[in-house]
Parts: sequence; structure tokens; C-alpha cells
Amino acid sequence: MRVIPLGTSAGKATAERMTAAFAIQTAKQLLLLDCGEGTQHQMRRAALRPHRLSLVCISHLHGDHLHGLPALLGTLSLCNRQQPLTLIGPPGLATYLDTLRSLQVIYPDFPIHLHECGTQRTTPFTVGDLQLTALPLQHRIACFGFRITEHPCARLDAQRLQDSAVPHGPCRSRLRQGQDVNMPDGRILIANDFLRPIPSCSVTYCTDTAPCENTRILAQDADLLIHEATYANDAQEQAHQRGHSTVNDAARCARAAQVKRLLLTHFSPRYDDLSLLLAQARAVFPHTDLAEELQPIEVCSKQHSN
Amino acid sequence: MRVIPLGTSAGKATAERMTAAFAIQTAKQLLLLDCGEGTQHQMRRAALRPHRLSLVCISHLHGDHLHGLPALLGTLSLCNRQQPLTLIGPPGLATYLDTLRSLQVIYPDFPIHLHECGTQRTTPFTVGDLQLTALPLQHRIACFGFRITEHPCARLDAQRLQDSAVPHGPCRSRLRQGQDVNMPDGRILIANDFLRPIPSCSVTYCTDTAPCENTRILAQDADLLIHEATYANDAQEQAHQRGHSTVNDAARCARAAQVKRLLLTHFSPRYDDLSLLLAQARAVFPHTDLAEELQPIEVCSKQHSN
Repeated sequence: MRVIPLGTSAGKATAERMTAAFAIQTAKQLLLLDCGEGTQHQMRRAALRPHRLSLVCISHLHGDHLHGLPALLGTLSLCNRQQPLTLIGPPGLATYLDTLRSLQVIYPDFPIHLHECGTQRTTPFTVGDLQLTALPLQHRIACFGFRITEHPCARLDAQRLQDSAVPHGPCRSRLRQGQDVNMPDGRILIANDFLRPIPSCSVTYCTDTAPCENTRILAQDADLLIHEATYANDAQEQAHQRGHSTVNDAARCARAAQVKRLLLTHFSPRYDDLSLLLAQARAVFPHTDLAEELQPIEVCSKQHSN
Repeated sequence: MRVIPLGTSAGKATAERMTAAFAIQTAKQLLLLDCGEGTQHQMRRAALRPHRLSLVCISHLHGDHLHGLPALLGTLSLCNRQQPLTLIGPPGLATYLDTLRSLQVIYPDFPIHLHECGTQRTTPFTVGDLQLTALPLQHRIACFGFRITEHPCARLDAQRLQDSAVPHGPCRSRLRQGQDVNMPDGRILIANDFLRPIPSCSVTYCTDTAPCENTRILAQDADLLIHEATYANDAQEQAHQRGHSTVNDAARCARAAQVKRLLLTHFSPRYDDLSLLLAQARAVFPHTDLAEELQPIEVCSKQHSN
């Protein structure tokens, strides 16, 4: 997977930072986590083609996570999109879109498959080659964190193929698909002997939230945890009152969940210089970085084509 | 007045052009005509201070004229705005804002004075030093054109003051306010003898619309007509079917209304090069320009302070 931060500011944009949005590219899909104002412009700057978009997840309905969605849907429609788009978000998202549609603010011509998350623990969604789990977070309004996992897959072991003199062509294709093969020479090739599992890649996204157990559950052993860090540690009381996290809260979650890497985002516009926030986080969880807009992060090593 | 084009693209933004928005600075006010996605970012680039904003006029509810409004309201609220904001727009604007408010997409703390235009000819609105007339245009949904006029005012005639030996100070102040003055020497100075009217400045904004009589009524003798020109002349049938104008339609309106100057906007993204559109317009109405984003246009010569 490749993660591209598109917006990292909390509440309102600044001259340097847009409001909340992340793009994720997998082997086969392009998805968005949140969609603040101007997300479609950021996608263009990141050379992400909107028509490849298959899934948009909205954490909650506060405008700094949502204002860019109607304009994006409008643009997709004007680009003659035909294929469906899956939208996953909190209760109220359907009312929001229905109102915009009934007033003709938007008039998308393509199917929108909308799923509103429940506040109880939910069964994972399957979207193409991805599995998506949503759990409620602790914010001022209904808000969900997401864990996105690629379906487990496997690759052929080149050395083993060579040792067994498996010819190129249909035999290898069938093995790749998990099918055993009867060879002309009488041998039976067992697919599992030739397949090596590729560890599935997981990214967890938690914003906006005060510290809560569901962030740890969503993040457990993830390859990347994207966690809000609206405030530095000295603003803990304000952060928690407003349903937000400090840098320390984010880093402690990363440590407790034993994630491989932590990416901080959703910075209050009060901070021009984020180096203090980074230092505070690394004191607790060293594998921490600040999300930098339009700077992609390779989470796993598969190829991307979006 | 100073007019600053902030967005000149129709339907969707391009790499060069944002969706519909114009700012107008008067001696005392800052107002917006339409508010496409990213208008607040364009205001920042144009060094327009959002807290000076007193009035936003929305022509119609299609997203390319509206998507930036909720984000702008959110930013104003986060900047602790207290003073009221006047919003003028089509029927449905209240439902739109009420839905966003009830879902907590926006939660403005300042008063919003909302006026929905009627489809019959309406009495002009008065907002500070401005008079605003709205008339229905001919589009696919309810859509209004606007004429904004500064209240008539006057300046003292310096030569006449000198000829009559009127001393500096309270006498001149009272004359400036239209009050006659009894002089110590027995003379009575009649204010109207010393005041020279400053022609009031008018800007008319017509988008989106097929050609219709109301555009001419709104534009009659205006200092500036901002008129949509979504298509070149060869796309007339498509333009009118979709409730839009060609360049020729805009130029003919300007000529019929005897405006001083025509500014074309709302260009279809199909046109990379707009020189053909400009040439087609100037063939009918020579005093035509293309709206260039962030390039201010001085309509009258008064001072601006926004």
C-alpha cells in the first residue's frame, strides 16, 4: 500500500495545510479516508486519478472531514463516471447526501453504495481486495476509526519452480491461482508447495478521538497507524474535553498496539512549527513521523498502478 | 468598487481555474458573489480578509456555485466571528444550511441573516452602503442575477468652497452632511450649492442563464456586467438547452443594456485557450475582457480598505 496525506490540518486550512484527507493506493484500488475541502485539488496535485477511486470512508460529519465530498462527487459525475462508488461513514451521511441531491446541489449519475456504520462492533466490509473494519471512537459526535487490510495473497516461489522444472505458461498460471496441476510426465504439482504467502498489509486511521480502547483494537499490529495529534502534551485537558488526542495519546496507542509505524496528523492551526510535537511523540514511540501533505509513504512493497 | 474574480470555471475546476466566485470590495464592505469550492483559499491568495465579509450572494444551488460556502462559514466560526453575515440566495438555501447545521457539519456561532429570493420581481435589499436587486434568470433550477449599487453620495466642490471663503472645520463638515450653515457674517450657505454628486457605481452579475430579458434589466447602464459565457458561439443550441449563454449572448446583453464594460466568466473546462471567446465577444461589444482569477478590476475610483 501507498499512503498519500492530502490534508493534515484540524478544523480549518492554513496557508500550508489543508483539512483532513488521506489517499490510499493498493494493488488494485484507490481510496480516500476523509474528504476535507479541496481534496480533489490535492488529488490532482498528487497525480491521483479520481476515476480510479472505488471507496471513500468518512470518519464523521464535521465539515473539516467532509466539505470536499460533494465537489468530488460532482466532478466524478461531470467526468461521466459510470462505475459505482462505495461510501462508508457515520449515521447521517445518507441524510446529508439525500438533501444535497434533492436540492440539486449534486446530481451524480453513477451508483453510490452507501453504508452507514453502526455504533456497535460491526462485521468487516469487503471492497474488492480490501477488508475494512470500522469501530466507534470518542468524539463530540458519532465518529469512526477504520482499519484497512489487503486480503491475504501469495506469490510463486521462483526457486522452487526452477528446481521442479515447471515450464512457463499455463502450468504456472494455474499454480498461481491455487490449482494443483497434472503434468504430462505423470507428476502432480501441489499448488501450496509452490506458493509463498505475502503478509497482508494493514493501515489504521483514527481521527477525531480522545484516547479510547477502540483505537488500540483497530491498530493492533498494524503496519501503519495514522492517528490524530491535534495538540501538544501541555493541552491534554483541552484535547480530551473536545474529543481530541495529544501527541502523547497517539504515541501511547501506537506503543500499546505494537504497530510498526505511527504517522501523526490533524494538527491544530495554532502550531506553525510541529517539531515539538514530533519530539514529544518519539519520546514515547520512536517510529513516528509527521504526515507531510503530498509526500507518499510506502507501507508495503507491492506495485501500484493508480 | 473593486471586483476580484476568484473562480471562473463552469461545472468543475481545472488546473488553472476554480469554480464560480467573485469578491467585491466597496468603500466599507467586502462581499462575495457565489462561493465555489476553495473560495476561502482564493480569498487568502487575494489578501482578502474573511472577517471583513458582510454579504454573500448565491446565484443558485448547483454545487459549482455553492460548495465553498459551508467551509467558509466553518472558518469564520473558528475565527470567533461575532458580527452577523447576510446571505442572499435562492429558495432551498435555508433547507441546505439547516440540514448542515442539524447534522453538525457546520455550527456557526455568529448570526446569519438569510434572505431567500422570490421568483417575482423583488424590492431591493439594503446592506450597509449597498443596494442589491435580484431577478430570476433562466436556468435549469431557480437562479438569480444580482445588481449591486452603492448608495448615491456626494463630495464637496473645493473650488466653490474657496470662492466662497468657507473656512476649514465644522462649517465644511456640516455642508458635507447636507446641512445648510448660518455663517457669523450673516451669510447662509446652502449645502446643495457646494455638493457635487458622485455617480453611484453598479455591478451586475448574471450566471447561470440562457439569454433572457432580466439580464438586460439588471445590467441597464451598469458600470460592469459580469456575465457567463460558458460556450463559444458554435455551441449555441447546447448552451440554451442547458440554460447557459454563448459569448454572443453575453455580448448582445452588454450592448442592449449599454453597460460600460463586460467581463466574461464561467468558461466550460473544454476550452484551454479562451482567445476565441474573447474575439467573438469583442466583435459584438468591444469593451469586453475575460475574467482572470485574482486579477482585480477597478470599477470606480473610490478608496477601498478591505
